[in-house]
Amino acid sequence: MQSRAVYQKTVEKWGLQEVVCEGTAQGNPFTERRITAVFTGKNECVSVDGFYDGDGIYRVRFMPSFEGSYTFRVEGNYGGEAWEGRFEVTPPSAGNHGPVRVANRYHFAYEDGTPYYSVGTTCYVWELQSDERIAETLETLKDSAFNKIRFCIFPKHYDYNLGEPRSYPYEGTPMDSSVLTKENFNEYTGKTEGNHFDLSRFNPEHFHHIERCILKLQELGIEADLIVMHPYDRWGFSCMTREQDALYWNYVLARFAAYRNVWWSLANEYDIFPQKKIEDWEGYARIICEKDPYNHLRSIHNCMPFYDHRRPWITHCSIQRQDLYKSAELVNEWRETYRKPVVLDEIAYEGNIQHGWGNISGEEMLRRFWEAVCRGGYPGHGETYMNEEDVLWWSHGGRLHGESHKRFHLLRQIMEETPGSGLAPYERCSWDEVCAVPETECMQPVKSYYLYYYSFMRPSFREYYFDDTTEYEVKVIDTWEMKVENRGIYHGKFRIELPGKSYMAVQIRKAGGSV
Amino acid sequence: MQSRAVYQKTVEKWGLQEVVCEGTAQGNPFTERRITAVFTGKNECVSVDGFYDGDGIYRVRFMPSFEGSYTFRVEGNYGGEAWEGRFEVTPPSAGNHGPVRVANRYHFAYEDGTPYYSVGTTCYVWELQSDERIAETLETLKDSAFNKIRFCIFPKHYDYNLGEPRSYPYEGTPMDSSVLTKENFNEYTGKTEGNHFDLSRFNPEHFHHIERCILKLQELGIEADLIVMHPYDRWGFSCMTREQDALYWNYVLARFAAYRNVWWSLANEYDIFPQKKIEDWEGYARIICEKDPYNHLRSIHNCMPFYDHRRPWITHCSIQRQDLYKSAELVNEWRETYRKPVVLDEIAYEGNIQHGWGNISGEEMLRRFWEAVCRGGYPGHGETYMNEEDVLWWSHGGRLHGESHKRFHLLRQIMEETPGSGLAPYERCSWDEVCAVPETECMQPVKSYYLYYYSFMRPSFREYYFDDTTEYEVKVIDTWEMKVENRGIYHGKFRIELPGKSYMAVQIRKAGGSV
Repeated sequence: MQSRAVYQKTVEKWGLQEVVCEGTAQGNPFTERRITAVFTGKNECVSVDGFYDGDGIYRVRFMPSFEGSYTFRVEGNYGGEAWEGRFEVTPPSAGNHGPVRVANRYHFAYEDGTPYYSVGTTCYVWELQSDERIAETLETLKDSAFNKIRFCIFPKHYDYNLGEPRSYPYEGTPMDSSVLTKENFNEYTGKTEGNHFDLSRFNPEHFHHIERCILKLQELGIEADLIVMHPYDRWGFSCMTREQDALYWNYVLARFAAYRNVWWSLANEYDIFPQKKIEDWEGYARIICEKDPYNHLRSIHNCMPFYDHRRPWITHCSIQRQDLYKSAELVNEWRETYRKPVVLDEIAYEGNIQHGWGNISGEEMLRRFWEAVCRGGYPGHGETYMNEEDVLWWSHGGRLHGESHKRFHLLRQIMEETPGSGLAPYERCSWDEVCAVPETECMQPVKSYYLYYYSFMRPSFREYYFDDTTEYEVKVIDTWEMKVENRGIYHGKFRIELPGKSYMAVQIRKAGGSV
Repeated sequence: MQSRAVYQKTVEKWGLQEVVCEGTAQGNPFTERRITAVFTGKNECVSVDGFYDGDGIYRVRFMPSFEGSYTFRVEGNYGGEAWEGRFEVTPPSAGNHGPVRVANRYHFAYEDGTPYYSVGTTCYVWELQSDERIAETLETLKDSAFNKIRFCIFPKHYDYNLGEPRSYPYEGTPMDSSVLTKENFNEYTGKTEGNHFDLSRFNPEHFHHIERCILKLQELGIEADLIVMHPYDRWGFSCMTREQDALYWNYVLARFAAYRNVWWSLANEYDIFPQKKIEDWEGYARIICEKDPYNHLRSIHNCMPFYDHRRPWITHCSIQRQDLYKSAELVNEWRETYRKPVVLDEIAYEGNIQHGWGNISGEEMLRRFWEAVCRGGYPGHGETYMNEEDVLWWSHGGRLHGESHKRFHLLRQIMEETPGSGLAPYERCSWDEVCAVPETECMQPVKSYYLYYYSFMRPSFREYYFDDTTEYEVKVIDTWEMKVENRGIYHGKFRIELPGKSYMAVQIRKAGGSV
């Protein structure tokens, strides 16, 4: 049966090499068969697991981190022989900056050193909708300022999410969902009667499809923050045995790890899985650390109590706000507590549904975004506007109906103007303003750059003083109206007139230089 | 010299009886002379201090708490003989409900039992402005929903407050204030060179004038929350000796205590007086408790750390918010901590000045008002809009320029619809709403009244369930647009459509009864 190994003769740096081997389809290849490969170049030697992809096909994937010649050798009991091969790794193409890494302690950069300023959104199961909806979502993302999207591998069962997904991750058949209503859906949680899934046999098409979506995101320059587990479940995927979970995690890692734009979010709301304990999450983390040779970013997202983001395997804090009123305002504290990048993956959603987490205004969302950025954190968006079709961006993608997202382009542009990489809270900021300075200049008495934000306050003017001589260019930014006014050059103690409106920012940068 | 004692032959209950005696003007009557009186009716025998009012005139004031015949006897070394007299106390006139007391632990009522729902404002030195400005302020107050105003006895030196007051509390002359600018005023604090005040000799006209203002407020049904000390000073009144302070406190008590609408606020921002310690404040409190026979309400207001509101002499918490973001949202906690009424005397001011405490929007002010009320607290307003004359309501009174105050009439009307007296936080309120129930029904599983508030959130609908049978009348309140919609009668589990806008409230009351 085994007849050949297929692979590309060239692949770009941080691209995806895939070796396709024919093997046996007999028995349960997902549990009984193993395929691995070692990829060797001048600068690295990487051992990876492959996976069974159905129809007797096995695949091994690899992301090279260096240019030049690589060899590989495929082994295993998958029913084929030990294949060997050779390929060339070419320089990355335009727009390929490699995977995102933590840089400068609280920030991110692509592996090629380009700063990455995260502006995220959440669409939990956008990729499990119809082709038309997916195309619409991608069109929306293309025009957006988002460079990260959080979504789930498993389908989602929740308010506004009672429909069937386009596919299931396992072989089998789901319960009859026609019995579900907005009133009774809460009674169907975890493993519900009527579901017949074989949790030892994956449905490769489900994963194939997600891979296509990850690639589409990659083309748009968007990171795929994969939520590998979540509790909003009626099929039983949230309460598998430890062995079934391990099988799943290994399969996920073998399939997705070689995509450069993948991040691992262990869970959405880890703390509301009734069956899982901290030791379970630590176990999954061990699998990732062992099986992801590329060290993609790793996080775990809370409902109420934070996971201990100090854990060494956690690369950044993925935060859901814990207080109805204060959210992004706490970024300073979280930075100090965890000494890692702070990503606000859920600071409530712009919308008008009944739930308090899903009905803030565009103004409030934008305010939270600026509060986060001017404290050295990274904000995340979501949208939950009611409509007749119950198509809410937060879960299904589609089109955006809100107001905040239109203002994120300007914010991202301002973020990208940061000297060095990353903003830090200004230690001499007064109690009634937020101010960020370059992380790299934290220890300098006078900085080259200050970004002030006045939140819901409405000062008619503000006074500034840094030193007597340095000349600063001042811009006044109406973050809501998206207007940037150049106010000229100042030094010493100076006063800037402001319009007495909410949501104003002031950018002050050292004049005459590419600060 | 002494020739007669003058007093009214009748006075209404909680009215002000005053015995005027001629005495000596020689020496320093403020420190060397003493006049006291005992007032005796069927139900009370009250001993009070009088005071020297200049020009050889001494006055003793008394507020009767009962109807019927009273006698009095004036004594002292003021240079007159021991006068006696008799007068009748008639029933209170319409609108005279007596002084405000703490009632129902967390709330207030007038002494005649009428609930008092405090809706305050702050105009620190409105009464020390020109006659025209004072008249304008009273006109504004007359049309307003305010039933309490905080103001100072001493003049105020601060940003936007550099002018001279209409009078000084002591004999003497102030420093030349023409040297003051917006830039240098901070260098003139406490006792500044150039001031020549005799801190042992009061200026009776200063106090007379304040008394006329207190009476004007009384006519409007407004409580006078007198700030007896404050730190915003260039004349030295904030840093007198302990003996001078005691003289002042005794004088203030002798003059003002018999006005039924007086409250004692020991200080504005007690914690930023450089010279005063907790023992000083405790000392003033002892003087009040000893010398105010009517037990007017007593509080002390913070800048940053709260005074220990558990102190037995403190009748209610007078709170300045400690956090830029959370203010009224903390009323529940403060109620539980201090077990007293919570009055938010400073939750930032609506306006557009440069300071963060003085530039929130009307929407945010109104939101804080409703948050406070629906948590069982009492909100306070202030306004700081820039204008060419630097006449800011917060200090000078005058006209209101903001938007929030127009919406307080509706809020006060809703407050007055509370069954019993006072609202309490609803213990079964969900995380994304604020709800108040009658304080008196806290222990009942099902209440007769629920007042929900949705703050900045924008639900399109909400569902309610109390029990299966009780019928409830539902009103939807747009707190900003000031529209109240009657939505009819519901029972069991029911759903109320909402407009998906911020600042909505829902009033749910048991149908068919004068709840």
